[in-house]
Amino acid sequence: MHKGLLIVLSGPSGTGKGTVCQQLCSRQPRLHQAISITTRPPREGEVNGVHYHFIGEVEFIRLREAKALLEWAEVYGNFYGTPRDDVENARTRGHDVLLEIDPQGAMQVQKNVEDGVFIFLLPPSMEALWQRISGRGTDSLQVMKQRFAAANQELHRVWQYDYVVVNQDDQVDYTVERLEAILAAEKCKVKHHHDFLQELIKEGESIDLSLH
Amino acid sequence: MHKGLLIVLSGPSGTGKGTVCQQLCSRQPRLHQAISITTRPPREGEVNGVHYHFIGEVEFIRLREAKALLEWAEVYGNFYGTPRDDVENARTRGHDVLLEIDPQGAMQVQKNVEDGVFIFLLPPSMEALWQRISGRGTDSLQVMKQRFAAANQELHRVWQYDYVVVNQDDQVDYTVERLEAILAAEKCKVKHHHDFLQELIKEGESIDLSLH
Repeated sequence: MHKGLLIVLSGPSGTGKGTVCQQLCSRQPRLHQAISITTRPPREGEVNGVHYHFIGEVEFIRLREAKALLEWAEVYGNFYGTPRDDVENARTRGHDVLLEIDPQGAMQVQKNVEDGVFIFLLPPSMEALWQRISGRGTDSLQVMKQRFAAANQELHRVWQYDYVVVNQDDQVDYTVERLEAILAAEKCKVKHHHDFLQELIKEGESIDLSLH
Repeated sequence: MHKGLLIVLSGPSGTGKGTVCQQLCSRQPRLHQAISITTRPPREGEVNGVHYHFIGEVEFIRLREAKALLEWAEVYGNFYGTPRDDVENARTRGHDVLLEIDPQGAMQVQKNVEDGVFIFLLPPSMEALWQRISGRGTDSLQVMKQRFAAANQELHRVWQYDYVVVNQDDQVDYTVERLEAILAAEKCKVKHHHDFLQELIKEGESIDLSLH
């Protein structure tokens, strides 16, 4: 059994990570999406164990202190994090795990996981990103400007990623196809086939051609 | 304009490199297949500039001495090689170049090209490889045994490759799909998007949000 991949899909707010992940998971039903833990109370319609694992602050801090989180953040007084065990257990069972996460979180994961595959989702242009951020209509102008300034900062981290994929508004299918190609290609890496290759070499040496 | 990729598809005799390359090129018409040079005379039906560039021995040796070949070999008194210029010119014009080559040649290319993508085509088992080698019916038993012994040796080089793809007899389509995925994924590597990423960073910093 191969160990599953850890695919980290990241990118600034407004690049469309959520939609892309949703479509990727619906096309690849065997792909596990990692579920975050959070200390914030569930919003209407959110289901424990589906959207998040909702836990108490004492428990969160215990996990964090025990180095049991691949990454964590505090946002507006609430904690969010990704439990290492959930990800590792799924991978050990051979499942590929998808982690959708902001660039700060992705950089923490990179420190904690040796063999993750890091993909940065890009807007076609920064002008297009501003249109998306400002077009949502739910945030104040100040919040929108903060998001855009953060995106500019986050973009400087792109060099630490393995892959970039541009997500055009009207071509999410094409974006998802490229992510599927990255998944398929990563599975072909020599390092994932060590046991099979060793067996093949052994088999070749054991075949007795003097019988022919 | 991005520089094209150099895809080196290699593997022992009998793994089906030729068929796989043919199908890949017919599905990806923009992929350039590198044409080898050789000093052997054309066989019936072979066209100069299509199957090989047929050249004289003096010219071959001149190119080899000038380090103008990515790899070369002597087989039964004839020389074969891959001219560096053909490959580099196509890549500079933005074309991906496919090189189908035996593992000895591939290892020479690896020494001469920094950024090639090396794929090792595998049989599903060594027993299956022997069946393929011995089933051709055109070679003597001694030649078949030599081919199989060479395959065993070549398999030890697999660790120096980037990717492995198993080519099942009845699933060439699946093999070609995986090669296409590797191509698509390699094109998403961060290193191929340096200029676009620099421009995106610059664009983001130039957008004046104080106007909003």
